[in-house]
Amino acid sequence: MSTETIDGVSVTTRANVYFDGKCVSHNVTLADGTKKSVGVILPATLTFSTGAPEIMECVGGACEYKLAGSEAWVKSGAGERFSVPGNSKFEIRVADAYHYICHFG
Amino acid sequence: MSTETIDGVSVTTRANVYFDGKCVSHNVTLADGTKKSVGVILPATLTFSTGAPEIMECVGGACEYKLAGSEAWVKSGAGERFSVPGNSKFEIRVADAYHYICHFG
Repeated sequence: MSTETIDGVSVTTRANVYFDGKCVSHNVTLADGTKKSVGVILPATLTFSTGAPEIMECVGGACEYKLAGSEAWVKSGAGERFSVPGNSKFEIRVADAYHYICHFG
Repeated sequence: MSTETIDGVSVTTRANVYFDGKCVSHNVTLADGTKKSVGVILPATLTFSTGAPEIMECVGGACEYKLAGSEAWVKSGAGERFSVPGNSKFEIRVADAYHYICHFG
């Protein structure tokens, strides 16, 4: 079961647009100050760098991802999560759309 | 001055993707039940149809829009709004990015 809504947040109205719009997200801040983002990746193969560690939670669609130092592409679909270490990279490929929540830290 | 955040909302985690990703938005619901969306339009010329009347508030970037029945393209930039009647259409053209809040009703 994937997370359909996040309640009691402040949403930043201006979107984050990455890779010419292949990834678009909006930042949200929870009442306790926790920051997350909700976004979508459209058909593409992209490489993301992390600062803080991230947990990517799929809330719709699917992707395949490959962590730095791994040769394996792993599928992640709705309701599934994967973790990315801080100061690292991951590749992600999307055939249709990958809707996600990015949890930091 | 444009609206940088909307506070105390429930955000729908799954994005709305229109026109192959030329327009991406997320729905938010305020505590009183009011629904809005926050989104971005990327470089394109698009035609949108309305159900309910809409007020489009620019929170970053700019667009030009043309309402149904008008021949005039009108610019709208950060902090500016325009209204679209219900059951109507409007054209919008964006050169770089148009970040918006869509207020309904």
